[in-house]
Amino acid sequence: MTAPLRISLDAMGGDAGPEMVIAGANRSLTHHPNTQYLLFGDEAKVQPELNKFPNLLKRSTIIHTDISVEMGEKPSQALRRGKRNSSMWKSIEAVKKGEADVCISAGNTGALMAMAKICLRTVADVERPAIAALWPTVRRESIVLDVGANVGADAQQLVDNAVMGSAMATALFAKERPLIGLLNVGVEEIKGLDEIKKAANVLKNSDLPFDYHGFVEGDDLGRGVVDVVVTEGFTGNIALKTAEGTAKQIGTYIKDAMTRTLITKLGALIASNGFRALKRKMDPRGMNGGVFLGLNGLVIKSHGGTDAKGFASAIDLGYDMASNKLVERLSKDIEKSHELLANDLAKEAKPILAKSETASEKEQINE
Amino acid sequence: MTAPLRISLDAMGGDAGPEMVIAGANRSLTHHPNTQYLLFGDEAKVQPELNKFPNLLKRSTIIHTDISVEMGEKPSQALRRGKRNSSMWKSIEAVKKGEADVCISAGNTGALMAMAKICLRTVADVERPAIAALWPTVRRESIVLDVGANVGADAQQLVDNAVMGSAMATALFAKERPLIGLLNVGVEEIKGLDEIKKAANVLKNSDLPFDYHGFVEGDDLGRGVVDVVVTEGFTGNIALKTAEGTAKQIGTYIKDAMTRTLITKLGALIASNGFRALKRKMDPRGMNGGVFLGLNGLVIKSHGGTDAKGFASAIDLGYDMASNKLVERLSKDIEKSHELLANDLAKEAKPILAKSETASEKEQINE
Repeated sequence: MTAPLRISLDAMGGDAGPEMVIAGANRSLTHHPNTQYLLFGDEAKVQPELNKFPNLLKRSTIIHTDISVEMGEKPSQALRRGKRNSSMWKSIEAVKKGEADVCISAGNTGALMAMAKICLRTVADVERPAIAALWPTVRRESIVLDVGANVGADAQQLVDNAVMGSAMATALFAKERPLIGLLNVGVEEIKGLDEIKKAANVLKNSDLPFDYHGFVEGDDLGRGVVDVVVTEGFTGNIALKTAEGTAKQIGTYIKDAMTRTLITKLGALIASNGFRALKRKMDPRGMNGGVFLGLNGLVIKSHGGTDAKGFASAIDLGYDMASNKLVERLSKDIEKSHELLANDLAKEAKPILAKSETASEKEQINE
Repeated sequence: MTAPLRISLDAMGGDAGPEMVIAGANRSLTHHPNTQYLLFGDEAKVQPELNKFPNLLKRSTIIHTDISVEMGEKPSQALRRGKRNSSMWKSIEAVKKGEADVCISAGNTGALMAMAKICLRTVADVERPAIAALWPTVRRESIVLDVGANVGADAQQLVDNAVMGSAMATALFAKERPLIGLLNVGVEEIKGLDEIKKAANVLKNSDLPFDYHGFVEGDDLGRGVVDVVVTEGFTGNIALKTAEGTAKQIGTYIKDAMTRTLITKLGALIASNGFRALKRKMDPRGMNGGVFLGLNGLVIKSHGGTDAKGFASAIDLGYDMASNKLVERLSKDIEKSHELLANDLAKEAKPILAKSETASEKEQINE
């Protein structure tokens, strides 16, 4: 029997706090019984929730801390107040110390990213970590990154995102050479940004551990044309939220259409099995969890507003990533790619590296 | 009785060419009987189609030209081949000469924009035209721009987009002070690009002919939170196509769910009135047409792959825009806003104006 996987949870994260987190952990435990939990948070609040689930109780340790990061707090403020001693920081630190294989938090995204960067540091040569999301498609899921860690990216960072997303696809889909696409606009006249074209040139001509498909457009995301869609965090975040919003909007349309008359209600009742299947398909909780890529350790961000079912999905995703050794794989791939591309990138990408911005950003969060 | 509105059509544009264009015009004529058509294209192909519709025939003039722009052609190539003599150019030129009130084409977007810019020129002080799309929401439509005319925008251009979108909203929704939002990402850590923040400062503090709501995120698009969502063409294009793709994807899910078993098929049959209503709601043809804003004349771009019904929507949109004097309104608003903001923008935005890029772009299409 292999050693149990060790999962650290920020028990205070999310809109609903410990109640949701602990119930989610219990749910995930039924999927993956061979896990152990470190629960960071206010013992007085966590213990009563944990007592509800005898199986989880047996496999959990509570580590008490008074301080928790607020959902609306600015990252800089969260760091001032919660660096070293908050439930969020400590749950990340457990990964750094080797006490846990993966950390999951439903807390404040900005604070979580800031703390994870400081605590875990980026993998050698990666300038900025990215957040990767699973994207449902008509085929199966694909991976989209960055969905919001950084605004803007130069060619080097886009190539890094491709390498990191590819490592995640290999870990998650068991595909040796995932298919990678670069998100772009199709209109001939404008044909996208310089850095995207530069990244495309590098990806096209290099011997990296994936296959490069070419450009993809917004409507290719839901088609599952590629395994990994690479973009920068501004566009990725807006695409992700636009898709979520559109799904919700159509959900409203469906409800309205099926409750128009007694007859449509009757039809919908008879077809209720179909509607249940549709609901499962469109349930955002089934695909909850943003993976922080490019750090020396695994951190998963759950939606703050999710429930136990959604939080369990985020833990399950963390389980998959950790048991498939994502960080080790990614670090190796990134190192190899930087060696391989040293020449290309010196020619192609270095002049547009936003060094100054990144430097000042680091200072800010190190303050 | 008011004078009939005069509509010029690029009869050769679109994947299906004259057959689709003429049938679309006939369909729109039933909505707006008081219109006259100028049809630019190959008479041998256009006349037989026109002969099918006696009413349209009476109200139409064919202007023959051999040359038409190909759907896949590069704009520079289209200009070399088709400047002055193609059906696309001539249909735009009719607006310039005052022979038509609006031009509609389902042809190559890049070529249409390039020709429209050269032929009509931008309104005084507008550096770059934008493409505005109607966006269906759970409330009613809103306007999103730019959805693909230009990659990137500085603060000045974002403010221009706000003013132009507002003029369009006033014309289309008969709302004196439309509500404007700036598309941004919500994550606290990153909070968007500098130019967006600068544009927000200008919009917040200025006495412009609309109300400024603040930032909106991707998932606010489908909610109809504001009348006009302002962004630049890269993000706007990806958001638009992502929403279209998501709608298609969910359409597939609905079909799959309702054809799972005989029972679900029966239920769906009984609820067929509801499904028809849903289909109408999700039909992209009902909201076809990108409006080119910022030019001295009105040009509407229809989806190239649409059918007669979709093309009729684009004509209807052109009819609404022309009869509400969009261009006059927009020119006045832009002029006023540039006067009002002369100081703010000198301070705020001028340093990041991408003058050089625009200049070289102009050279390129003037070649």
